[in-house]
Amino acid sequence: MIDATVAAMGRDYATVHRGVYARSADMTLAYEAARRRIAAFIGAAEEQVVFVRGATEAINLVAYSHPRKGRVLLSTLEHHSNIVPWQLAGWQVDVCPLTADGRIDLDAAEKMLTPDHTMVAFAHVSNVLGSPLDVARAAELAHRVGAELLVDGCQAVPRLPVDVAALGCDYYVFSGHKLYGPTGIGVLWSDKLDALAPWQGGGSMIDRVTFGRTTYAPAPTRFEAGTPAIVEALGLAAAVDYIDAIGVEAIHVHECALVGSLREQLARRNSITLFGPDNSAGIVSFAMAGVHPHDIGTILDESGVAIRAGHHCAQPLMAHLGVPATARASFGLYSNDDDVAALIDGLSRVERIFG
Amino acid sequence: MIDATVAAMGRDYATVHRGVYARSADMTLAYEAARRRIAAFIGAAEEQVVFVRGATEAINLVAYSHPRKGRVLLSTLEHHSNIVPWQLAGWQVDVCPLTADGRIDLDAAEKMLTPDHTMVAFAHVSNVLGSPLDVARAAELAHRVGAELLVDGCQAVPRLPVDVAALGCDYYVFSGHKLYGPTGIGVLWSDKLDALAPWQGGGSMIDRVTFGRTTYAPAPTRFEAGTPAIVEALGLAAAVDYIDAIGVEAIHVHECALVGSLREQLARRNSITLFGPDNSAGIVSFAMAGVHPHDIGTILDESGVAIRAGHHCAQPLMAHLGVPATARASFGLYSNDDDVAALIDGLSRVERIFG
Repeated sequence: MIDATVAAMGRDYATVHRGVYARSADMTLAYEAARRRIAAFIGAAEEQVVFVRGATEAINLVAYSHPRKGRVLLSTLEHHSNIVPWQLAGWQVDVCPLTADGRIDLDAAEKMLTPDHTMVAFAHVSNVLGSPLDVARAAELAHRVGAELLVDGCQAVPRLPVDVAALGCDYYVFSGHKLYGPTGIGVLWSDKLDALAPWQGGGSMIDRVTFGRTTYAPAPTRFEAGTPAIVEALGLAAAVDYIDAIGVEAIHVHECALVGSLREQLARRNSITLFGPDNSAGIVSFAMAGVHPHDIGTILDESGVAIRAGHHCAQPLMAHLGVPATARASFGLYSNDDDVAALIDGLSRVERIFG
Repeated sequence: MIDATVAAMGRDYATVHRGVYARSADMTLAYEAARRRIAAFIGAAEEQVVFVRGATEAINLVAYSHPRKGRVLLSTLEHHSNIVPWQLAGWQVDVCPLTADGRIDLDAAEKMLTPDHTMVAFAHVSNVLGSPLDVARAAELAHRVGAELLVDGCQAVPRLPVDVAALGCDYYVFSGHKLYGPTGIGVLWSDKLDALAPWQGGGSMIDRVTFGRTTYAPAPTRFEAGTPAIVEALGLAAAVDYIDAIGVEAIHVHECALVGSLREQLARRNSITLFGPDNSAGIVSFAMAGVHPHDIGTILDESGVAIRAGHHCAQPLMAHLGVPATARASFGLYSNDDDVAALIDGLSRVERIFG
């Protein structure tokens, strides 16, 4: 990924969709090939993929430009990026509760959904709890009342095989930097882009501009105003190549084993409260009695173990869990049993210091 | 710049504003140092600098989140990125004409401005004609009627010393990739950020999130929803270091000499129509009788000369000039007399082919 970025920034650099010189034409082909590559990674067609800065911008785009702004059903475990855009864009927000083990309660969603709902927006995998969503069922429930389903796939794409056609959702969003790719880029997928109104205006997204009236390009170009994150698109395509070479299914199996091992070892400790379901995908959140998660994080950091400690941009979920913050370990494809052992050793050290 | 990017993507990579581990804290410091570095480059304070994807997003941000949406005065030479956002965000658009030599006619602007205008938005340097704006006078005219001035500095920051305090404008925007920096990053500067409403929602830009009510962080954080373009911010700071080491004033003098030489040689040719004023900054647009600019571009490309040919995202200016497109040579700090000679030789070749 870094090599692809360096080549795109240096040897091959040019802008896209503009220049008549060969280097710019080549870069345009590479940029569109990156779009095609990333579309294929999630089972999509290239014209259904919009490059954005990240999942946050993708959700803002849908929230602001949707033709039927109305009621949206979110869940208690959503990341702020899947709450605040709907509020700012003027949607009425309803909140689906969670099951006791921290999954979005789809039975409750079924009862809550009404024909007034035009959107349901759920995380595919919770960034705090790791809880995976039954996307196909969520889509079925949403569609039954005439609503659409947006899935926040940030934490899912690096660890679960994702095929948007099989999932049946209407929008799928994710960020490049969580997929072993660059910062500054993410993806909005939808097979309903043509229904969205233009949002950000500028170069490239237009058909014809006059001061009296402007007409717009078809999707996905309509949603890529200005010079896009060209280098980052090529970097993300390289990251996808890398992940596909390993295989997302293999990554999933690998991370499941690590999550299972960590949860089992944590469950044995009286001081630890475990959050989230047993089938958490790649992520384990926990609390230690009498110790603030920030102190856990700081002490673990001293022994080279990097965890996140805080509200994880999910303050409503913290309120639901009744904690100010959690400690969160998340695994990547490069994590291994030694990392689990180092975390457990570090927690023993935390217990000794605070015990 | 590439070295800084590689270090930020590899050795030093971490997210910002979140982690309690040392590597994330270090990256947060580096990201904020980049903001400070770029602020200093334009004579600004760091809390006045928002990182965005590029100038296009910056203008959209101001157009959508301004508390006094009303009438905006643009000019005939604006880039689509400084036209379409105002249209989409619901502003009434007025258009200031140009002088005969292609500068924004500030005498006309003075007559057109009324107390109904809440915004004036002009390019500092035209991306087609190279025409520089007298920003201080434009600011004075805008302020006289109670309007603010937004300056599109995309083509100015790489070639004119920019000190926002001295210019007297209210908003100044530019893109990283035109400043020898990365794609996927740009800057909105303003000393009036606190008056702008939140626009894109998500993580980091909040104070407290509940489903009933969300409160927001102060500027500039309020406008950086989600994981920012971290690596790109560090890359842009490195580009600014590079440019400052050479000196923007030196780049300006260097490019002025090249523009003067090219304009003089082009003016001698009967087939050529020159656009823009004699003091064009770094950019020379022209037409050749009977030859479409795309053909000029294609033939020049064969001899290794890369120019832009097209409407340059400025269709209203093309309509004003009465041409479908122009051929445009733009200079960088690395351009030299050999490049001018190669362009002139290439044009002779175009004349032979089409003559």
